[in-house]
Amino acid sequence: MSVNSFGHVFRFTTWGESHGPAIGAVVDGCPPGLALAEGDIQPWLDRRRPGTSRFTTQRQEPDRVRILSGTYEGRTTGTPISLLIDNVDQRSKDYSEVARAYRPGHADYAYEAKYGLRDPRGGGRSSARETASRVAAGAVARLVIPEVRLRAYLVELGGDAVDPAAFDDAEIDANPFFCPDPAAALRWEAIVDEARKAGSSVGAVVEVVTTGVPAGWGAPVYARLDAELAAALMGINAAKGVEVGDGFAAARATGVSNADAMRPGDAGPRFGSNHAGGILGGIATGQPVVARVAFKPTSSILTPVPTIDRTGQAADLRTVGRHDPCVAIRAVPVVEAMAALVLADHKLLHRAQCG
Amino acid sequence: MSVNSFGHVFRFTTWGESHGPAIGAVVDGCPPGLALAEGDIQPWLDRRRPGTSRFTTQRQEPDRVRILSGTYEGRTTGTPISLLIDNVDQRSKDYSEVARAYRPGHADYAYEAKYGLRDPRGGGRSSARETASRVAAGAVARLVIPEVRLRAYLVELGGDAVDPAAFDDAEIDANPFFCPDPAAALRWEAIVDEARKAGSSVGAVVEVVTTGVPAGWGAPVYARLDAELAAALMGINAAKGVEVGDGFAAARATGVSNADAMRPGDAGPRFGSNHAGGILGGIATGQPVVARVAFKPTSSILTPVPTIDRTGQAADLRTVGRHDPCVAIRAVPVVEAMAALVLADHKLLHRAQCG
Amino acid sequence: MSVNSFGHVFRFTTWGESHGPAIGAVVDGCPPGLALAEGDIQPWLDRRRPGTSRFTTQRQEPDRVRILSGTYEGRTTGTPISLLIDNVDQRSKDYSEVARAYRPGHADYAYEAKYGLRDPRGGGRSSARETASRVAAGAVARLVIPEVRLRAYLVELGGDAVDPAAFDDAEIDANPFFCPDPAAALRWEAIVDEARKAGSSVGAVVEVVTTGVPAGWGAPVYARLDAELAAALMGINAAKGVEVGDGFAAARATGVSNADAMRPGDAGPRFGSNHAGGILGGIATGQPVVARVAFKPTSSILTPVPTIDRTGQAADLRTVGRHDPCVAIRAVPVVEAMAALVLADHKLLHRAQCG
Amino acid sequence: MSVNSFGHVFRFTTWGESHGPAIGAVVDGCPPGLALAEGDIQPWLDRRRPGTSRFTTQRQEPDRVRILSGTYEGRTTGTPISLLIDNVDQRSKDYSEVARAYRPGHADYAYEAKYGLRDPRGGGRSSARETASRVAAGAVARLVIPEVRLRAYLVELGGDAVDPAAFDDAEIDANPFFCPDPAAALRWEAIVDEARKAGSSVGAVVEVVTTGVPAGWGAPVYARLDAELAAALMGINAAKGVEVGDGFAAARATGVSNADAMRPGDAGPRFGSNHAGGILGGIATGQPVVARVAFKPTSSILTPVPTIDRTGQAADLRTVGRHDPCVAIRAVPVVEAMAALVLADHKLLHRAQCG
Repeated sequence: MSVNSFGHVFRFTTWGESHGPAIGAVVDGCPPGLALAEGDIQPWLDRRRPGTSRFTTQRQEPDRVRILSGTYEGRTTGTPISLLIDNVDQRSKDYSEVARAYRPGHADYAYEAKYGLRDPRGGGRSSARETASRVAAGAVARLVIPEVRLRAYLVELGGDAVDPAAFDDAEIDANPFFCPDPAAALRWEAIVDEARKAGSSVGAVVEVVTTGVPAGWGAPVYARLDAELAAALMGINAAKGVEVGDGFAAARATGVSNADAMRPGDAGPRFGSNHAGGILGGIATGQPVVARVAFKPTSSILTPVPTIDRTGQAADLRTVGRHDPCVAIRAVPVVEAMAALVLADHKLLHRAQCG
Repeated sequence: MSVNSFGHVFRFTTWGESHGPAIGAVVDGCPPGLALAEGDIQPWLDRRRPGTSRFTTQRQEPDRVRILSGTYEGRTTGTPISLLIDNVDQRSKDYSEVARAYRPGHADYAYEAKYGLRDPRGGGRSSARETASRVAAGAVARLVIPEVRLRAYLVELGGDAVDPAAFDDAEIDANPFFCPDPAAALRWEAIVDEARKAGSSVGAVVEVVTTGVPAGWGAPVYARLDAELAAALMGINAAKGVEVGDGFAAARATGVSNADAMRPGDAGPRFGSNHAGGILGGIATGQPVVARVAFKPTSSILTPVPTIDRTGQAADLRTVGRHDPCVAIRAVPVVEAMAALVLADHKLLHRAQCG
Repeated sequence: MSVNSFGHVFRFTTWGESHGPAIGAVVDGCPPGLALAEGDIQPWLDRRRPGTSRFTTQRQEPDRVRILSGTYEGRTTGTPISLLIDNVDQRSKDYSEVARAYRPGHADYAYEAKYGLRDPRGGGRSSARETASRVAAGAVARLVIPEVRLRAYLVELGGDAVDPAAFDDAEIDANPFFCPDPAAALRWEAIVDEARKAGSSVGAVVEVVTTGVPAGWGAPVYARLDAELAAALMGINAAKGVEVGDGFAAARATGVSNADAMRPGDAGPRFGSNHAGGILGGIATGQPVVARVAFKPTSSILTPVPTIDRTGQAADLRTVGRHDPCVAIRAVPVVEAMAALVLADHKLLHRAQCG
Repeated sequence: MSVNSFGHVFRFTTWGESHGPAIGAVVDGCPPGLALAEGDIQPWLDRRRPGTSRFTTQRQEPDRVRILSGTYEGRTTGTPISLLIDNVDQRSKDYSEVARAYRPGHADYAYEAKYGLRDPRGGGRSSARETASRVAAGAVARLVIPEVRLRAYLVELGGDAVDPAAFDDAEIDANPFFCPDPAAALRWEAIVDEARKAGSSVGAVVEVVTTGVPAGWGAPVYARLDAELAAALMGINAAKGVEVGDGFAAARATGVSNADAMRPGDAGPRFGSNHAGGILGGIATGQPVVARVAFKPTSSILTPVPTIDRTGQAADLRTVGRHDPCVAIRAVPVVEAMAALVLADHKLLHRAQCG
């Protein structure tokens, strides 16, 4: 019931602020006996790490993870796995202005309305820095579901979509945009550069596909696999929309065009299409689970935006500091991590009830 | 942790199958002393009730709710409120075919993959009939948040959208589509009639707007108000997508165009726009909370669709029985109910932590 | 998180008041495919039923259970199992006095302090009638753990203990006290009769032994099997103490006398004794799980006790109505049910994490 | 639902093993704006710290706590509070024997039966070292309930009880036994010394009294204040029994002798006695909440005990290493902490539902 926890039986809790001494996650319910060392987590954090291209924030964080509990001689013991990442490059001086006035599009005003105070340094708890903890926890979740392959990537940036026909899995990690279409990746360089020059930013859409999810994972009615994916993905910073399968396009389809025909297959049915995105009634069908997340453009922009300060007076805020011109890029590993965390939880939950 | 429960401190559990003797909900955590009688719940159920126009299923269910616990002399006592609705018009004979073969687009195959067996009568637990329980529970939730006004309606059907300029709140309950635009409602009659004649069905998009949500409701990080709304709405039968605020359109906006400027207001800031949909960092800003849900077209169609039966053999299924040609229509009261349930929970959760 | 729910993955919620139309339980997370009909539940309710001897309340309740959901063709489907028991013999007229003044030893004052109002009819939600719902849910739990044998009985009544050497399992259901020692049962008849004649009541101690619990069920640290048993048993009406294994006697033992030696056995260790009561570190050792619960004497007595009324004025209350002279007697099936519910939950929870 | 978490809305999760790099707790749901610095936590840890007298283990741990998140400028922000305590004095070499054979009375065998492997160093997660995390979390809980005074102390050691007439609150922190009776404390020195010389250990009983708990905290039915206290206290290492109010003595009382008469008082009733221990129907009555916990004697003793090793062969284990001759002594601050954690949670839970 902790609001900073997620999951039923494979459950993690994160803590930490952008400019505190460290951030971290505690993963509970992990099966015992899994090989786990820091080297299993670090690559995923490196993938999300800031400062690796000119298209992400220049904050330099090594994001070195330490496992403080839950393993013995390189294997999980079934007890809570505490993961800690030190904050190294906190330039709190950049945030004096933020302490005074509320950044439009950020959680500053909402946090203060809720709590009566807030940690203004880098957005405190509301910073996307928190997502490093998710990526670390997600790396543990991946070990729980070796049968599943997860793949997230950008399918649209600044309104410019990839060409599905040009999809190349090998491209995803070969450009700074996690973009499966090399031609689109080239176009996006220009789009992002231009947005930055204009003191602005761009949004994007991330797609995640998981293959190997067995039919039967998931649960009615309020722990539906799609509902929990929706919560997991909408809960990522800057997310504004989530789709499963055809999503909003399904609302424009007809019952005939939207039907996923089934034919006898080797193991279970062979589906003629996957409009459903691999989930029916909240339960996996065995097809790839497909979801998309819409991310708004970064709210921290160099163009001044009218706002108010803590005393209620008008102010104009121009967000200095180091920021991602398109937050969705670094969200890709986070989307994968959240999907892994949901699936690991549902694997164990399914095992609990159905053996 | 029950998969058939929802909420943190205002929490409800539903039970029941489409063709069992009854369905129901247990609402726990309701504040004491609220005036509550069956007459406070019935109107909302009547709004969702099938058989009220030719655009919804002809199943005749009075959906008469009984309060079995949790009230005394017309007031809530703080103990669990048990709500029961008898199933009256179960024509189980219609479902013999369903018992044999899996209906494409339905949860038949997924349930059987999960549980090894299923109740085929009307889809059993996976039937949209379950949503009557949510509407009943939602009626209780409404009493907890008198400061909030909830309004859901269709904004698009079969790809045909309402004209925002023609929005008329009074129209919503004046046509069979919960459509705020009378011209669109007329067009939709033809669209639905045509789909039905073609042995098909149509999808639609429901929008829900809640006004009066105080700044501060909601919570970081995994109980974000938007994440929980996403789960609540994606968990409704046939939902395939959820947006908050500008949603997927935000992914096409720039940081400059997407900024919601703030100016000094009478109580808190006056916002220049509401791209965010009233939520930042998972916490309400005091603006209207706006969300949209995409519903796929009804999967039960008279056009035969290839499928397999329980023995794995090929079959063609033409879904006879009584069905909604557009499930999204009757989803409108369900969307409102789920929004009310999320907000009531977050009101109490906020009070727990922040007094 | 619902305060009227219990369990992690095998979870039940109860609802209902003593003099409302009905009481019930919703069981969620039950494995699918188990044979379940009302006849599997009714015998356990009959065992707890009031009015079966002169040593229990004369309220006549048939306690007929109905299964409203979660089964199909006599098997559990994996969806919530709704169990309903009608209240038949509510003599609300007996409780007008209770509505005016607070019964000492009852929850009347505490409920009103919490909620500002209360249902005075038979104690409302605080009545031991609620435990019928637990017994019904417990009957389902038993089906989940066929490897476990549960046995509860009274070991002490009115300060008079059974002779362990005279323990006879067959006696437990052969006398009105669930007493394993026939000589003690005879003595207890006199003790209870005398207490009733004196306008008083007596307390008692119930012991529960479960055999067949495999080593490994349970969990560190806050879901310890002993901690959850303690919560489950202390949560029964009138319970004031819980022990596992030697309990309070262990506090008087030495490390040498309290040691349970282990020797090689056929499957796992053979233990030389069971001071621990079958649980170490919160996890079952494979030995019988042994617990005891102390029940206070019935608070409803014919001897007047000083109290106050709702206006704060002094009053003397003599509890008329129909009451058990020793509530612990009918608590025996409830203790068994709660133990079954805890164990079924931990079986599934163990399976979730450890496969 | 995490098994290493406790609480509903004020919820904490602990992690860490006896001989890992560190242990810690994450506290979620803490109200914002409370003054909190490490100096508010350290004194409680110092009280529990080992090595402070010859009656506790000689392991030297400074138990220096660090707050890694959740505060800003000395005040809680409402976000998770991460507390970390480094393990400093881990002599893992002492535990090679433990890795080979199961220590009787310890969780070694049970953990291995559950998980298939275990961290043998100092008992790993099952070590009482974990309770330092609880004391740290409990220090935060205390700040949430300034209206409550908590006081725990030993009332019995090695079967030798304090004289209630000699109770002196000032004595509790003036001797190494948290003993309120100076004469008993003197006797206990001899008892503990003798047990140690005999290669044995002793058990004890801890009592905790909380005053200032307002009538109304607590909740029916499965979150009863007494049930949650029972879980919290039974979940402490080596606990074998829990009582509330008169506890097991109530089972020997009559309804007449056990009645707590009420008379008109200044604010609410004035009670003539407190047999109930301040809780009725799971809800506080406004009287002091009184509970007792029985702790078994330390299982680590120098006298060899028959056991088996991991291969199932017979072995004799003589527990070398540094151990408390009476674990109950250092459990006193843990009992206080757990009581504080339960009460803080119920304060907020009550506020959620009842405002």
